[in-house]
Amino acid sequence: MTARPAVVLLSGGLDSATVLAIAAGQGYRVHALSFRYGQRHVHELEAAARVAQRLGVHRHVVVDFDLRTFGGSALTGELPVPKDRSAGEMSHGIPATYVPARNTIFLSFALAWAETLQCDDIFIGVNALDYSGYPDCRPEFIAAFEEVANLATRAGVEPGTDDSRIRVHTPLIMLTKAEIITRGRALGVDHALTTSCYDPILRPVGDGPRWLACGHCDSCLLRLKGFAEAGLTDPIAYAGR
Amino acid sequence: MTARPAVVLLSGGLDSATVLAIAAGQGYRVHALSFRYGQRHVHELEAAARVAQRLGVHRHVVVDFDLRTFGGSALTGELPVPKDRSAGEMSHGIPATYVPARNTIFLSFALAWAETLQCDDIFIGVNALDYSGYPDCRPEFIAAFEEVANLATRAGVEPGTDDSRIRVHTPLIMLTKAEIITRGRALGVDHALTTSCYDPILRPVGDGPRWLACGHCDSCLLRLKGFAEAGLTDPIAYAGR
Repeated sequence: MTARPAVVLLSGGLDSATVLAIAAGQGYRVHALSFRYGQRHVHELEAAARVAQRLGVHRHVVVDFDLRTFGGSALTGELPVPKDRSAGEMSHGIPATYVPARNTIFLSFALAWAETLQCDDIFIGVNALDYSGYPDCRPEFIAAFEEVANLATRAGVEPGTDDSRIRVHTPLIMLTKAEIITRGRALGVDHALTTSCYDPILRPVGDGPRWLACGHCDSCLLRLKGFAEAGLTDPIAYAGR
Repeated sequence: MTARPAVVLLSGGLDSATVLAIAAGQGYRVHALSFRYGQRHVHELEAAARVAQRLGVHRHVVVDFDLRTFGGSALTGELPVPKDRSAGEMSHGIPATYVPARNTIFLSFALAWAETLQCDDIFIGVNALDYSGYPDCRPEFIAAFEEVANLATRAGVEPGTDDSRIRVHTPLIMLTKAEIITRGRALGVDHALTTSCYDPILRPVGDGPRWLACGHCDSCLLRLKGFAEAGLTDPIAYAGR
């Protein structure tokens, strides 16, 4: 019997790598989906490819489009990436690294793929605790998108498909970063393959130039704090620490 | 005083041209959004550009991505475009020209642009009467997406923005094709600039090759029926009639 397919959004960060391991561990035939959307930290796609290969996904697709057309985010280069913010600063308001409607766009493409695969299960590594104030990481957003998914597609109009309701799985949504790291470690995620930095720095290392994490953006700080709280050492290299 | 901005989804068909004219007529500063998504009828983008220019939009953006990556639709070339179907056949089930999750993707990009423009108004020319059975043209889908739009964005989490609820306007949703044509004519839409065909044919015409409507796909048949019921002549050329 063929395993049930699932579409897993994969950025190459430690959250999405953990989600991928969770979906694979549940026996899904994983279809990993990444995006080249004009992000300045495009090196995350190399991490996504490494993670997809190591965890043995069925297929990994990278969809291309350019959100720089619309602008409005530090992650697509229009604003500086904030550095060395305290936990208090991070918990206040929406940061410059927020990319307008990004998760809505990502989930829409996941939905398109899921529908062509006749697949009812989409996984996304959003997190509502250690998130940096992104509106599209909240449980109420995910619930609303799930409603859209079921109305937008064949499942919503064709008879006899009540049991094939599309579900958007968010296994990390209520975990702390430390818990995500511990969970990933238990599932065999090699954190050395992942990247989290919003503003990586190209440095000559050994046999050639290599992207190193900055160690100062919100995402690096949350990652480092998570490893510290989990009592583990982050295996990736940082340029600025 | 600067006019309020609106994002209008523009395919180049007569529905979206009419919606654009409606939004412009209501005084919005129109930002028209089209997509090169791997559609076989990519000539519709030429029509979109003509319509945008004629109706004097503030800006027209075409976003590129490739839905052929996922497959599953006649409009992206994986299945034949159905021809000469009766009204009864069209009203039964979801046709092969349905593109999985297309309107969800289109609206997600519209939302991204709207958010960077600080714009609360999105217009889309979906139609629930003369539509050909697409799940993502129904009022309940639009209502669910509007909910997502308001939870996904800054408007959903920042204080003091209750009056800036994002609205997805569907001025054509309960009109017949004949009514849309009559309405467009009254608003000065030049239907000769629009195209509706799912499977156009390149023919030598006068000074060079030109895309002509097939006259037999669902979209051509609905368009021709609409003009007949409106008592008007369709000004575009058909190859196959």
